[in-house]
Order: sequence, then structure tokens, then C-alpha cells
Amino acid sequence: MSKFNVTQKLIKEHLLEGEMTPGKEIGIKIDQALLQDATGTLVQLELEAMGLKKAQTEVAVQYVDHNLLQTDFKNADDHLFLHSAAERFGLWYSRPGNGVSHPVHMQRFGKPGKTMVGSDSHTPAAGSLGMLAIGTGGLDVASAIAGQPYFVKMPEVMGVKLTGNLPDWVSAKDVILEMLRRYDVKGGVGKVIEYYGDGLKNLSAMDRHVIANMGAELGATTTVFPSDEETKRFLKSQDRESDWVELLADDGCEYEYHDEIILDDLIPLIALPTSPGNVVPVSEVAGKSISQVVIGSSANPGLRDFWIAGAIVEGKSVNTDVSFDINPTSRQMIQNMIENRAFANLIKAGARFHQSGCMGCIGMGQAPASGTISLRTMPRNFPDRSGTKDDQVHLCSPETAAASALTGKITDPRDLEKLYDMKYPKFQHPEIEIINTDMLVAPPEDGTNVELVKGPNIKSLPHIDPILNEYEVPVLLKMGDNVSTDEILKAGAEVLPFRSNLPEISKYAFTVIDETYYDRAMDTKDKHGGHIVVAKDNYAQGSSREHAAIAPKYLGQVAVIANSYARIAWQNLVNFGILPLEFIDISDYDKIEQADIVKFENLQSDIKDRNNIRVVVKKENGNEETFETKHSMSDRQIQVLLKGGIINEFKEKLEKEDLTA
Amino acid sequence: MSKFNVTQKLIKEHLLEGEMTPGKEIGIKIDQALLQDATGTLVQLELEAMGLKKAQTEVAVQYVDHNLLQTDFKNADDHLFLHSAAERFGLWYSRPGNGVSHPVHMQRFGKPGKTMVGSDSHTPAAGSLGMLAIGTGGLDVASAIAGQPYFVKMPEVMGVKLTGNLPDWVSAKDVILEMLRRYDVKGGVGKVIEYYGDGLKNLSAMDRHVIANMGAELGATTTVFPSDEETKRFLKSQDRESDWVELLADDGCEYEYHDEIILDDLIPLIALPTSPGNVVPVSEVAGKSISQVVIGSSANPGLRDFWIAGAIVEGKSVNTDVSFDINPTSRQMIQNMIENRAFANLIKAGARFHQSGCMGCIGMGQAPASGTISLRTMPRNFPDRSGTKDDQVHLCSPETAAASALTGKITDPRDLEKLYDMKYPKFQHPEIEIINTDMLVAPPEDGTNVELVKGPNIKSLPHIDPILNEYEVPVLLKMGDNVSTDEILKAGAEVLPFRSNLPEISKYAFTVIDETYYDRAMDTKDKHGGHIVVAKDNYAQGSSREHAAIAPKYLGQVAVIANSYARIAWQNLVNFGILPLEFIDISDYDKIEQADIVKFENLQSDIKDRNNIRVVVKKENGNEETFETKHSMSDRQIQVLLKGGIINEFKEKLEKEDLTA
Repeated sequence: MSKFNVTQKLIKEHLLEGEMTPGKEIGIKIDQALLQDATGTLVQLELEAMGLKKAQTEVAVQYVDHNLLQTDFKNADDHLFLHSAAERFGLWYSRPGNGVSHPVHMQRFGKPGKTMVGSDSHTPAAGSLGMLAIGTGGLDVASAIAGQPYFVKMPEVMGVKLTGNLPDWVSAKDVILEMLRRYDVKGGVGKVIEYYGDGLKNLSAMDRHVIANMGAELGATTTVFPSDEETKRFLKSQDRESDWVELLADDGCEYEYHDEIILDDLIPLIALPTSPGNVVPVSEVAGKSISQVVIGSSANPGLRDFWIAGAIVEGKSVNTDVSFDINPTSRQMIQNMIENRAFANLIKAGARFHQSGCMGCIGMGQAPASGTISLRTMPRNFPDRSGTKDDQVHLCSPETAAASALTGKITDPRDLEKLYDMKYPKFQHPEIEIINTDMLVAPPEDGTNVELVKGPNIKSLPHIDPILNEYEVPVLLKMGDNVSTDEILKAGAEVLPFRSNLPEISKYAFTVIDETYYDRAMDTKDKHGGHIVVAKDNYAQGSSREHAAIAPKYLGQVAVIANSYARIAWQNLVNFGILPLEFIDISDYDKIEQADIVKFENLQSDIKDRNNIRVVVKKENGNEETFETKHSMSDRQIQVLLKGGIINEFKEKLEKEDLTA
Repeated sequence: MSKFNVTQKLIKEHLLEGEMTPGKEIGIKIDQALLQDATGTLVQLELEAMGLKKAQTEVAVQYVDHNLLQTDFKNADDHLFLHSAAERFGLWYSRPGNGVSHPVHMQRFGKPGKTMVGSDSHTPAAGSLGMLAIGTGGLDVASAIAGQPYFVKMPEVMGVKLTGNLPDWVSAKDVILEMLRRYDVKGGVGKVIEYYGDGLKNLSAMDRHVIANMGAELGATTTVFPSDEETKRFLKSQDRESDWVELLADDGCEYEYHDEIILDDLIPLIALPTSPGNVVPVSEVAGKSISQVVIGSSANPGLRDFWIAGAIVEGKSVNTDVSFDINPTSRQMIQNMIENRAFANLIKAGARFHQSGCMGCIGMGQAPASGTISLRTMPRNFPDRSGTKDDQVHLCSPETAAASALTGKITDPRDLEKLYDMKYPKFQHPEIEIINTDMLVAPPEDGTNVELVKGPNIKSLPHIDPILNEYEVPVLLKMGDNVSTDEILKAGAEVLPFRSNLPEISKYAFTVIDETYYDRAMDTKDKHGGHIVVAKDNYAQGSSREHAAIAPKYLGQVAVIANSYARIAWQNLVNFGILPLEFIDISDYDKIEQADIVKFENLQSDIKDRNNIRVVVKKENGNEETFETKHSMSDRQIQVLLKGGIINEFKEKLEKEDLTA
């Protein structure tokens, strides 16, 4: 390989471990880290548990954009905690209401040629600037901040050639909706989507953000754009021209997959409920009555996006039956919207303006009325994500959204020419935007003495002991196939507020399956030093939430014995120090019952030496059964597990490297 | 009496029943009605139950300013319902996010010389324009809309003479805080506060709004200002000069009470937690660290209030530890704030802008962090009202709030002269404000065919049968002294969302006292046609919530037998058709126990003729006890009760007057 595409160049420049063979694990150096508040509190608690002295990335930023409603003390307490943690561990702190992480990061920190991980699935938005930006779990982000490589399978790259120019009334959102129409929500899995071609010169950096951001909906590992003259213009408009470097694919480079979009052929598209992949032309559903239009979110965050909506509604009033909600992406954006009259135009026409943040995109307010249609420029319309159970959320461009707000019905924006005798308004990018960095707080040179501010609902992660050599512990649950992480630790409004409070959230562990689990676990933790659980196939399937491993571990779970595991949950178990054992003979499943006592001996050496692990089952009547189990951990994982999980492992590593406080 | 103060003139002009003798009940004609959404859904359901054809007031407006967070379908469903109900019953509809009721009403609808009732305790704010505006319960507002007189005791009037001019850095908020310092939160009970004197010419109409609005915190019936040249200037600035009439107190008129405030002597004041009456000079508590500043609400809603905050922070940044929340009172206000740069100044300095509404003033978001100080220009700081249990809310002027936002500590704004070499910024009222009426929807000429839009959580009030002549029903609860309405029907986040859903909210009736009440009540409703409850002294004390009567009635409560009743709750019982009986001999309390069956005979005639009402108590063992009770209802109330409550009474009345649809 001597000619590289942009993705390959980015990986090559950052490769620390492995080979660039698609499917093989590689470890890459991470330059930047992005945290938002909903996942960030746990990341910061993990950094605390690791004892990190100072972030090892070039830039790490803690954003606060998800939990802004503050209906009780918890959100505000989280904000104070995150601020103190950012100071303590050397991260930038983007204060509540400063803006949505992805566009703010792009405007203020994004740099062509850099890598980034973020604890938010729309982190790939930074690919718009020629970065390799990947959304991942909290522990991966904590690890990257602690200077550890990020491990991922070398992806295949799909090259999408863009040619021509977008027609009037069609914009970047329609490009990514076209991709979703073609590939649906799983078409990008395992791949990086890389855009190239002449059409790029007609897409601004913020247009590319729209495409890269919502590329997450294709299931892609990430999306990558080259860094070109337009990237330079954008960085200049942010007064950051010096951060620009050119990053183009080599002529004659190769892609594992190919596609092409002729921009001139695109028409206004819309994703119907309840999947971003459910895309049809707007004209197919035009005329349906709507109750709400929302413009904003990281999927249409640009000044142009708000300006065009303002230009469309200028001097008119939105339909009486439509709640016209505007979610400006940042305070800088608002200042520029005031300057270019978009703000006044929108307000005049009937807009409800909301503080800058993620808002309804993650169900934080502005839920639509029962069973009514809401048109949103947001990236997702999964059922109930808006907060309304029978919601009818449609995803579209700002043009389609604004046109529909005027008429009160789903409206193809091209019809505005006839309906209102309107010409397509053309946006002029300001040479230099009004810049606002006042609510971005730089980390202190030395934060080691900063005290973490912990409200009553924020608790440090407890120390986890390394795995012992011998256990004699009861079986607390015997489960069947396909136990999901939602059953292990349910989500929802009752439980989510305790994500920074492990002792409290642990009370919900396994409640879906057995309400007595918590009490029994606490009891056996004291009496026996722990417990195990048993399951059949595909244990811990579903959402990747780490709490489904941390909480049982906190309650003394030593091991799981199952026939097979869901991939991510299996990694989480190891990462948090729970031994994931596998039946060798599934008929042994019948030898073990709830309330039996299991005995392990020589556990440490058997794990290390990859011996079968002998399980002695003592029945209540004094009988004993014995069978053998195994594990599938890699050498690295064996080391992690024996130490009681990755936090202990990293703590030791950081101590050696003198990176702890 | 030949010389009248403004209050007396307003009452004299509207007197329908009674004499203007302080303490005696009078009935007055109501010209305008103000509804907000939190209480308005029930008012609209009451109008539906009455079968009203069209509002009989000159102006009635349904505002939507309380429940704007829309974390699920309920708020948005309420909005659609209120919109349809406003059309159906002939009210204006101020759409969600259009603004806070009181300032919007003042700007767009308030008229000197008019009377108004509102289902919001800050309704007296309209007194700033020379109106008699009273906050009251939902049923009173529904009655007024249906054209019925409003009954209230003729108040005594306190004349407060204002002289001189406010010093720099001191503003209208400090005037009302001075009143609260002098009289505390009960000093105004039973009185109207009327301001007069030379000092008035130095207080704008919106300054007077600040004083009249927060006059509610004195416990006053209302606050009244004259309508003078400043009132004229204000109405002109709203393009409504033609709505102005002069309304001044007669020279030599009398007031029952007197006080005087020399404006020149005032200093910046602040109300400490957790009462608006807990007022001290700002300088006494200066230097304490704060975590939040909130500017807005109906207690400081004026353009000047936001402008002065903007002028103070212009070109600076708020302290890093302070969340600077701005709650612009209306969309019209935002447009004017864009025009006069206040908006940009505030944003630039670090403000978080929120949609126009009541927000944190009634705990709808932006709750402060645990145990930290929040400075607010709002009217109330009762414990937990912000949403944070151990909140430390302080109430102050925009000057004090903005100064403190800059320093991060409670700061006397006069210190800005030294700290920032700042001169007191002087506001110039625009001759004509930018007017925005786009989100005020006028009622249709004929709304009788409009269908009410009811989401799954909105249920019509059920028909209530007139009281029967005989009952044989069980005693479901026997309670003691001082049972509160919070025990009869608790408030809180779990219950409040069901205020438009009587069948659902009724499930919470008496749960604080006995969780089995609901099931038993539903059971006896079917089997026996109802039940009664028994209590001792001061039954149903506390909050005036009407649901504490409607819900038990819905569950079949025929009567309460108690030794005495709290005043408002007693009226509510009658209004919703529950018979409030009193023991004649309190020792009879011992003759009746839970699960006994009570027999009433000749109930209708005994009530009507004011005979003692005989209660026959049948014990489980077959024994019987007998004792006599009485009631204290007026003739009007007797009629209401026999018909099954005021809704039935009005329905009949409206039918006679041909006012039903």
C-alpha cells in the first residue's frame, strides 16, 4: 500500500499497535477527547478511581449540554462536580448552556489530522474537519485521557464520491438522508465512510458536519472528510487559520467499497417514524398535519441552518397549530444569529427559543403532543426518544422544517416558490464569525489540589479488590437465554439520575428479574465475600451500559457462568473485574441451582494458565456436584481481570508512569 | 362618603351586590379574566361542565406560561386542549412561549378602570395600570367568565404615600422589599394597598407592576395604582393610547391605614431564605458566595429590568462559578431586547437564555445546586419552591442580581462604582416598543362547534347528582384535628400531572392517611351510593386546592362530620356538593367509628329549613347510636349544595339566561 485515502492516513499517523489489515485489532494514539455531561460524570469518577494526575491528550473537553433542565438539585450538582473534575484532571470545561458539544468542539478545538474519542455517539461529526473521531464507551474515553491507546478493529473504508451541486431547497441533510435511504441504519457497520470528489467544494465545513454527524445513524465507525480549502476558510472564520493543515486522499488511493452521489439529482427527503433509515421523498408525505417543528441539534447546528429557517419565515407567522421550537446550538451561534437577523426573524415569526443544548434530541424537554407529527432537524427518531410514547417524529432539513412550520403541514420546500412567491435564499458565510469563548474555561496548569465538588447524589467509585484464589459463595440467580442489560440494570427516569451514585443505582440491579437480588447480594457480600449468577446463551445482550457490570460487581458478584455472552457486555464484565466463565458442557447447567454454594480453588493460576476452571457445587442437602468451565479472555484481559478490573490496572500503570496525583 | 380613593372608585363602578362597608361581602362585576395553564385546564373543564356558550367578560385570556418543559406528552397535550377550549369558550389564547401572563396582559389587554380576576396569585400586577385585579380560585374565575359576580369582603385600603426619587442603583423591587420588611408576609391580609403621592411620577408603569405583582407576598387582596400621565405614556408605547383613561384618587379621600415611603432613603434590599418577608439590606449579607443568578419572572418583567442587567454586565464576563440564567418575559420583550442590545450584552457576558415563561419561579427548571445560594429577581423563595430541597434562594433587584453575577458573591450594586468604575446606567423608554401580537390568537366569533382536543390525560368533569333525601352509607375514615388538604390530596411531581384527570388524581385521595381509602370508596360508591368521613377541629386546613373537594366527591363522599372547618376548604366542599356537617356536642365524636354505617333521613328539607340533622349510627354488632349535627351554610350555599355543587347551579342559571351552547 503506497497510496492512502484520508482514513488510512489518519490511522497510519497514529498507529501504536497492530497492522492496518481490515478486521484486525489496532491500537491508535488519541489526540483529543470529548465528554458530555450525561456520560461524563462516570468518566470523571473513573479518572478519580484511576488516580490520574493530568489528562495526557492534547485537548480534552468536558461539555455540559444534555442535562440542562434542572428540575431538581441533581443536574446543577452534576455541573459543579464536572467543573471541579475538569479542573482537577486538566480538561477544558464548557459551561452549561455554552452549546452542544459537537459544533462547539468543531468551532473551537477541532483540528485536521487529529484523532479523537468521545463518550457520545455523534462524536464522528468532527470528521467534517479531516479528523478521525470515534464515539465510544466511557471507560475507553477515560483510558484515552489517561494516555492509553484506543483499540478498535481496523475498519474498511467506503469511498463516496460527491459530484455536482445541490439544487435550490436541498441541503446537506438531504445528502445524509439519501445515504440512509440507500444503506439504512446498519449499512455502515464496521466501515468508515469517506467522502471525496468535486462536489465537496460546494459543501461547507458545517454542511460536512451535518453529514458526518448523522453518519452515526448508518452504524458507521465514523465518517471522514478531507481537509481542504473549505476547511481552511471555515477555520479562518473561527479565527483559527493557523490550526489548518491540508489532508487529502492520494490520487489513485483505494476504497474497500464505492458509491457516488450526484448532488444535482437530490430532492428534499424525510425520515418517517420510527427510524432514521425510513427515508422517503418529502413530496410523498406532504400535506399531513403537524403539531411541532424543531430546528437545531448537532445534526443541523450551523449558522446557515438557522439563517435559512429565519429567511424562509421572515415577515410571516408560523401556523397557529404549530409549536415552532428553536434550539440554537451555542451562545456563539446566538450572537451571530442576532447579527444576521436570523434570531429576530425567527422570534417575530413565532419561535420559542430554548437554551443551547441537546434538548428534545435526547428527550430533555419539548416532547410533542400525543400521537401528533413533529418535524425535527435532529438525527434520531427512535420510538419514545422525544419523551412521548406514541410520538411521530420525522427528520428533515431546516428548509423542509421551516416550510412546514408556515403551512402547518408537511411541505416540500420547493413548493414555497409557488406558495409564497419565494426565491431560495442564499447564505453568505461571514468572513469572520463573532467568536465567543467566555464560557469555555481552560484547565489550570496544576489541578492536583482541586477538590472534587460532590453533591449528595455523587459518590466516588469504591475500590475493587483483586480476584481471590478461593471462593465459597452462593448462586444468587439462575437465569435463561438472552438476559438483557435492561434486565440486569434497567434504564428509565427513575434509575438514570443515579448514574453517578453507584451505591444507589446498585439497588436496581436485576430488579426486573428478582426484586430480592439486592438484599440477598448485600447479605452474602458480608457473609460469604460475594456471589455468582448463572445464565444460558447470549448473556447481557442489548445496550452497552457499563452499569450492568459495575453495579453487580459492587454488590459482590465474583463470576458469571453462562453458555455464551453478548460481545460488549462480556468486555464490560472483564473491565470491571467479574469473571465470565463458560460452560464446557451445557448439560452442566442442570447441575447448578439458585441457592447452591459454589467452591472455586486455585482460581488465579487456573485463569492465568488457561486451565479449565473447576466448579464444585454444594447442595443444601450436603450433596456435591462438580463440573468444569473455561474462559475466553486474551492475555491482556487476564491481567486486567486478576487485578480486579481495568481501573486497578490503569491505576498501577499510571503510578509506574508517574501520572497519578 | 363623597371623596373616594382609587380602590373605592373601582369598586363603586362595579358594585352589583352589597354595601361598601369594610368586612361586608360585596359582589362586583368582572370585566376581564386571566388564566394560566397550570390552573387553567381545570377552569376550562369547569366551563365545559357548566355548558357555557361564550365568555361574558370583555376580555378573557388563556395564557400558557407555567408548564413549558414538556418532558413528556402531558404539557403539550394540555396546550392543545387549552387552545381548543379558548376557541370553544371565546377566550384569547396566548400560545406557549409567548410570555408570562402578567406582563403580557398589562402590555396587550390591561385597561385603567377595569376589574379582573385571575387564577394566579400574582394577578394583582394589573393594579399597576389602575385596575382592580384579584387572584382567586379556578371556580371563581370560571364563574366570572360565565358572567357571574365575584364575591369578596369589602377590603380596607392602606394608602402608601410615595415621595421623592429613587437613588442610583435602587429600583422598584427595593420599594416592595421595603414594604415586605415593614409588614412581612401577613401584613396586607384583608387590605388593598394603594400607592399615591409625588414619588409616583418617578416610577414607570412597569416599575409599578413590580410593586403590584409582589404585593401578593404581603398577603394583600390586591394593589392599586392610579392611572396617570405615566400610565398614558406606557399605553402609548404599546400603541394603545386610546385605551387610556385617567383614574385618580379624589383630593381629600381617606384610607383606613396610612404609611409613607421616602424613595430617596431606600437602599438595595434582599429577602433571605426562606420567606419574601425576611428582608435585610444587601450590604448585611454581601460577600457570600453564590452559584446562580436568575433574572426575569413577573416580579421583574420589564424591558428596563433586562436592559439594566445587560448594561451592568456589558463587555464583562460573569463569574466562572455562577450560572447566569435569563428568563425573558415575552417574545415581544426579546425583540425589544435585541433592538436595545440588552440581549447581546447578556449573552456575551455568559447568560443562559430560556424560553419565555415562569420557569424556576414555580420550580419548572433551573433548580440550583444543593445548599448553594441562588439570587433571583423572582417574587417567592419558599423552601423547595425552586425544586431543590435545601435551596438558599434570595430575592433582589436586577441591579443586585447582575452585580452579584459579576463578582460571584452577593454584592451591593452601589459598590459597582468602585469595583468597576461604573456609573449607574439610565434607561430611556422607547417611545413605541416593538409590538408582537403574532402568538396571541383571538377567539372566533362563534366557537360553539369547536371540539375540545383531549389527550389521554385530560378527562371531562363527571356529572354530579343533586344531594338525595336519604343515605345509608359507611364511615370510611375517622380522623383527628388539623387534617390538611395536603393529606386529603397531596401535591408533588407524582400527583400534579393529573390535575386535568379527575379519575386518575382521585386515586391519591387520602393516601397520606390511609392507602386503602380509594379502593374502599370505589367499592362503597357502587354498593351504598357513597360514604362519609369524620374529623375533629380545623378540617382541611392549608392550601386551597379544589381537588381536595372534587376528588372525594368523585369517589362518592356525601358528607363530612367535623367539629370545625378551615374557611376556604369549607367553601370548596359546598361548591363541589359535599355536605359539611358540624358536631353540636363534640362528645358525639366518640359515638362514631370507622366502618360504622350512618343513616340520614329527610336530608333535603332539614338542610333547607336549617333543622338539626339527625345522624343514626349503626354498629357492626347491630347496636345503634344517634346524635344531632348542624350546618352553617348561607341561603345561597344551601341552594348550591342541594343542586350538587356550583357547577350544576351555574349550568341551570346559564341555561335560563340562554348562555349555554
